[in-house]
Amino acid sequence: METDKLTVLTIKHLKDKNKLALQEMTEELHPYDLAELYRALPEKHHFKFLTYLTSKDIADLVMELEPEMQIEVLEKLGIERSSKIMDIMDNDDLADLLSEISEGKLEEYLSAMENDESKTVQQLMSYPPETAGGIMTNEFVWIRHYYTVRDAVEKFKSFAELTRNIYYLYVIDENKKLVGVVSYRDLLLADMDEKIDDIMFNRVISVPTHTDQEEVAQLIQRYDFLAVPVVDEQNILKGIVTVDDVIDVFMDEAQEDIEKLSASGKDIDFQTKAVVASYRRLPWLVLLLFIGLISGTILDSFEDTLEQVVALIFFMPMIAGMTGNTGTQSLAVVVRGLVTNDTDRGTILKLIWREFKVGIIIGIVCGLLVFLIAMFWQSFVFGIVVGISLLATLIIGTMAGTVIPLILFRVGLDPAVASGPLITTLNDIFSLLIYFGIATSLMHYLI
Amino acid sequence: METDKLTVLTIKHLKDKNKLALQEMTEELHPYDLAELYRALPEKHHFKFLTYLTSKDIADLVMELEPEMQIEVLEKLGIERSSKIMDIMDNDDLADLLSEISEGKLEEYLSAMENDESKTVQQLMSYPPETAGGIMTNEFVWIRHYYTVRDAVEKFKSFAELTRNIYYLYVIDENKKLVGVVSYRDLLLADMDEKIDDIMFNRVISVPTHTDQEEVAQLIQRYDFLAVPVVDEQNILKGIVTVDDVIDVFMDEAQEDIEKLSASGKDIDFQTKAVVASYRRLPWLVLLLFIGLISGTILDSFEDTLEQVVALIFFMPMIAGMTGNTGTQSLAVVVRGLVTNDTDRGTILKLIWREFKVGIIIGIVCGLLVFLIAMFWQSFVFGIVVGISLLATLIIGTMAGTVIPLILFRVGLDPAVASGPLITTLNDIFSLLIYFGIATSLMHYLI
Repeated sequence: METDKLTVLTIKHLKDKNKLALQEMTEELHPYDLAELYRALPEKHHFKFLTYLTSKDIADLVMELEPEMQIEVLEKLGIERSSKIMDIMDNDDLADLLSEISEGKLEEYLSAMENDESKTVQQLMSYPPETAGGIMTNEFVWIRHYYTVRDAVEKFKSFAELTRNIYYLYVIDENKKLVGVVSYRDLLLADMDEKIDDIMFNRVISVPTHTDQEEVAQLIQRYDFLAVPVVDEQNILKGIVTVDDVIDVFMDEAQEDIEKLSASGKDIDFQTKAVVASYRRLPWLVLLLFIGLISGTILDSFEDTLEQVVALIFFMPMIAGMTGNTGTQSLAVVVRGLVTNDTDRGTILKLIWREFKVGIIIGIVCGLLVFLIAMFWQSFVFGIVVGISLLATLIIGTMAGTVIPLILFRVGLDPAVASGPLITTLNDIFSLLIYFGIATSLMHYLI
Repeated sequence: METDKLTVLTIKHLKDKNKLALQEMTEELHPYDLAELYRALPEKHHFKFLTYLTSKDIADLVMELEPEMQIEVLEKLGIERSSKIMDIMDNDDLADLLSEISEGKLEEYLSAMENDESKTVQQLMSYPPETAGGIMTNEFVWIRHYYTVRDAVEKFKSFAELTRNIYYLYVIDENKKLVGVVSYRDLLLADMDEKIDDIMFNRVISVPTHTDQEEVAQLIQRYDFLAVPVVDEQNILKGIVTVDDVIDVFMDEAQEDIEKLSASGKDIDFQTKAVVASYRRLPWLVLLLFIGLISGTILDSFEDTLEQVVALIFFMPMIAGMTGNTGTQSLAVVVRGLVTNDTDRGTILKLIWREFKVGIIIGIVCGLLVFLIAMFWQSFVFGIVVGISLLATLIIGTMAGTVIPLILFRVGLDPAVASGPLITTLNDIFSLLIYFGIATSLMHYLI
C-alpha cells in the first residue's frame, strides 16, 4: 500500500479511536514502512499514534528513525515508557541513540532500564564511533567446540529471539577466545550427531574492536561475508558487525566523498531547512570568498601588463577555469581511489607519477588548441603566451588536485579540507600567477 | 600472510615446479586474496601459475578479476579449458564475463560449454545490464508448500553445492509462481515434521526482472534483506539478487555520482595508464575549454566598461569562483539526494524552493561582506556594484546547480552531463554577464 493511503487510513483509525484496527495494520508493516508512515503523519497525531502502538512496534519504529525524530519519540513517551522500549531495542541501535542524548537525561534513561541491558549498552557506548566496536552488536550466540550439532541447534533455538539478523554461530574455547565459526547452512547440512569441532571453520577472519569501520566494510565486501566477528586484544569475542550495517557504512563513506568534492557541508539532504542548509554551507563559502579575493590582489599587481595588453583578459577565465577543472578530475580519482586501494608508498608514488604524465598529455593537447585560436585571433607571440600558460597551469592544476588531498590524507587532517571548490580556488590563483607571469616576461614581444 | 610474501613463495614454487605445494597454498586462500596474488604476480609467470591451479580455483579467481584480466586468463587457457572453468563459474558472474567477449569468440565458448549451463547463461544474458534480471543469479533452491521441513532440508542438502551464497528457500506453486519464502533460520527453528505451509512467510517482497538495479539495492538496504527474489510478469520465479551484489551496486552508484561531480570520465582508477586516463578526461576538458572561451567573448563585449573602471577586474575571479562554488554545493545535494529520495513533483518543487531560499540567504551574507570590502577599498557605488552582483550571481548559481541536473534527470539524459565542472563553467558565464551588466548600467556613477 502507498504511504499516502496508509496515512489517511491511520488518521481515520486514530479519529475513530480504533486501536485494534491500527495495530492490525501496523503489524503488517516492515519497520522501514512504519517509519515512513510516522514521518508522513502530521505532528499533532504523533503522540496518539505512539500510544496505540505495541512496545515492539515502537522499538522497530525508533530503530529506523533519524536521531532528531528518535529523541522526539522518547520525549513524547516519557522516561518510564521509553526505558521499556529501550530494553527491547537492538543494542547497537540503542547505543547510537543514547550517544545523541544529553548527559543528564542519559543517566535517567540508563537507571530506568533493566540492569543487564543498561550494562551491556554502556559497554558498547565505550567504543569510539566509526570503529568495529562502535558499530558492532553484542547480540550473538556462542557455542563450544565439543557440542554436537544437536546441542548447537538447541542452544540456538533457546536464543532465537536474539538472533534476528544473525547468520553464524561463533565457537569459543574455555577462555572465551574465538576458535571457529559455523553457519546456519553448515548446521542444516550436517547430521545431528556430528561434532561442531568437525564441521566448524577454524581460520575465522576477525577484526579488533578499534578497527576503522571502513576497513570492516571492505573486509565484508571483499570476502562476501554476512558478518564479521569483533575481538579484543586477547582474541576474546566481543561482538559482530553484520552486512546490513556495512551497507550503511558504504553509504556514509560515499556521502563523505561527495562532501569532499563539493565542500557542501555535512548532512544536507532534501529535507534540511533552508536556514540550516545555508548555515552549514556558509563557512566554506566565506572562506573561499577571502581566498578568491587573493586572485584580485594578483591581478592588481599585474596592472601594468593588463593595461598594456587588454586582450590578455579575454583568455583569463578560460585558463583559470581549465586549471580548476583538471584539478577536480584528479581530486575525484584520488578521493575515490583511497576508499578501495592500499595506500602504501609505492602505490601513491606511482599515482603521482601517472597524474604528472596525464597533466603533460592534456596540457599539450589543450595548449596546442588555444595556441592556434589565440594565434589566429591576435599574433604568434600571443598564441605562445596563452598556449604555454595553459600547458603549465594544466600540469600544475593536475598535480594540485592529486598531491594536496594525498598530503592531507597522510598527515591525518580532515579530508573534507581538500574539497573540490578549495582546489578550484587555489588553482585560480596558481593559474593567474603563471599566466600573467609568462605574459609579463614576454611583454616586449607582445606590444 | 601479506601479498608480497605470498608472491615470493608462489614464484619459488613455480620455479621448483612444485605443483602440490602451490595447490596447498592456494587452497587456503579466499578468492579475493587469490585474485590479489594473481595481480601481484609478474605477467611472465601467469600462464604456468594457471596450469598449476585446480579448475575450481581458476573459477574462483576469474570471478574476482576485472574484465580485461578475465579475458587474459581465458586466452591463456584456450577454449577447451576455459569452457570447463565456465561450467563451474556462478551463472551471474559468467553472464557478465561473456557479455564482454566479442561476438565470434562467444559462439565458440558457448558451444564448448555443457549444454544446460550454456542455455541458462544465455537466458541470463538476455536481460539488460543494470536491471534486476541483469544482476540476478538463477542458482536458487525452490520447494513446494506441501513439503515438510524434513523434505525441504533433504532437497536443500542435495543441492548444497549450488547454494553457497544463498540464505532462503523459495516456495512455488504448481505453476512455478512464487508463493512464499523460508529462511535457513526458520528451518533450524522448526520441527522436522512441520509443514512448510505453516512456517513460510507469505507476503514475499519480489521485484520484476526489468527493475532498475538501484531500486533493488534500495529495497535490500531498507528492509535489511539478504536476497530478494526476481519474478516475471506472471510472478514466476526467475532468479534472486543477493546482498553481496547489492553492495557492488552501491559502490558503482557512488562512483557514478563522483563522476558527475568531477566530469572525470568513466573508469579511471589508481591503475589506469596515463594515456588511457588522459584519453577519457580530454573530451570533457576540450568541451569545457570552448565553453570557457565564451567568457572571453563576454569580456570582449564589455571592453569599454573594463577600460574605464579597471578595478572591476580585481573582483572578477572571486565573483566567478563563488558562483561556481555554490553551484557545486547545490549539485552535490541534488545528485546524492536523487539516490535516496522519491522524485515526485512535490519533493522536487520543495527542493527547488528550498535552494532558492538558500541562494538568497548566502547571497545576502556574502554580498554584504564584499560590499563592505569594496566600499572601503574604492567607493560606495563600487561596493554596491560588487555586492549586488555577488548577491545576484549566488542566487543564479545556486539555482543553476539545482535546476540543471533536475531537468537532465527528468528528460532522462545521461546525468554525467550535469557535471560539477560544467555547472562551474556555465556559472562563470552567468556571473560575468551579471557583474559587467550591472557595472555598465551604473557606469556613470562609477566614474
